[in-house]
Amino acid sequence: MNVTILRLGHRFERDKRISTHLALVSRAFGASEIVFDSEDIRVKESVDAISRAWGGDFKVSFTESWKKFIKNFDGIKVHLTMYGINVNDFCFEKLTKGGEKNVLVVVGGKKVPSDLYEIADYNIGVGNQPHSEVAALSVFLDRLFCGIELNKDFKGKQKIIPQERGKKLEKSGIN
Amino acid sequence: MNVTILRLGHRFERDKRISTHLALVSRAFGASEIVFDSEDIRVKESVDAISRAWGGDFKVSFTESWKKFIKNFDGIKVHLTMYGINVNDFCFEKLTKGGEKNVLVVVGGKKVPSDLYEIADYNIGVGNQPHSEVAALSVFLDRLFCGIELNKDFKGKQKIIPQERGKKLEKSGIN
Repeated sequence: MNVTILRLGHRFERDKRISTHLALVSRAFGASEIVFDSEDIRVKESVDAISRAWGGDFKVSFTESWKKFIKNFDGIKVHLTMYGINVNDFCFEKLTKGGEKNVLVVVGGKKVPSDLYEIADYNIGVGNQPHSEVAALSVFLDRLFCGIELNKDFKGKQKIIPQERGKKLEKSGIN
Repeated sequence: MNVTILRLGHRFERDKRISTHLALVSRAFGASEIVFDSEDIRVKESVDAISRAWGGDFKVSFTESWKKFIKNFDGIKVHLTMYGINVNDFCFEKLTKGGEKNVLVVVGGKKVPSDLYEIADYNIGVGNQPHSEVAALSVFLDRLFCGIELNKDFKGKQKIIPQERGKKLEKSGIN
């Protein structure tokens, strides 16, 4: 399965860190790409630097029209919103029915355009309480991939050797 | 089980939003309290306002000594760190063995003091790639509570009625 994330409502002044977290979560939790609806080269540079050091071929890009992007997306479109069906009541098999290969996960900020609720195939709430788009995205992807995304080998220049105590970082010699 | 979150390394200038997200995630994912190692009344007020509107008795507080707080905590102490044992390899039953009732989950910022790795009972990585403390906390709590935390009724003044399309917010009349 190929998962793309679309992040709406990024504000240049306020959202650099939250958007960076969303991008890093997308990468670490098994998505292949994140697309923003406004260009912020700081976020892209920061995430690309992580990918260069830690591996993988995660992409950060921008779209000029989020609506066209969603409409043209060839696959199932999921919108994460606290107003949607609770993820506990959502059958994830719907995302793989008919051999579907591509899933788009849309995460917004505080206010998202109301027609997004209509364009999406599914509106899903990671719970129905206010919390964080970073949390919603990570838990949704963790459930989607049944946790195995956290065992992915990114084949980077460096990787962590998990320890019960302390830190161990190994350099691979890959350039 | 009673879960407390301890957030280390909050910086007044930079971390207001990330710390607020951490607090809201703690509340929405079943913890009863978050404790910060530095006082930021903006975060507390913002989270308390959410609790007044949306219900529950989630607490936000501060400690002057995080080390004393951890040492005095009566229960099992978990430190979330990308250097720790992968959560996929962690047996959650360890947290309930011996009828233990209290769990402390410590989340840091970029740099945490090295003795934290020794004080904690378990150092656990929600994966071993760099991403986000908000993601780490939410996925850890989601796994700990097996997802049922997302069905909690907070009995607030308002609640969402989950919808396949659009938004529905119900006022309860509770004051």
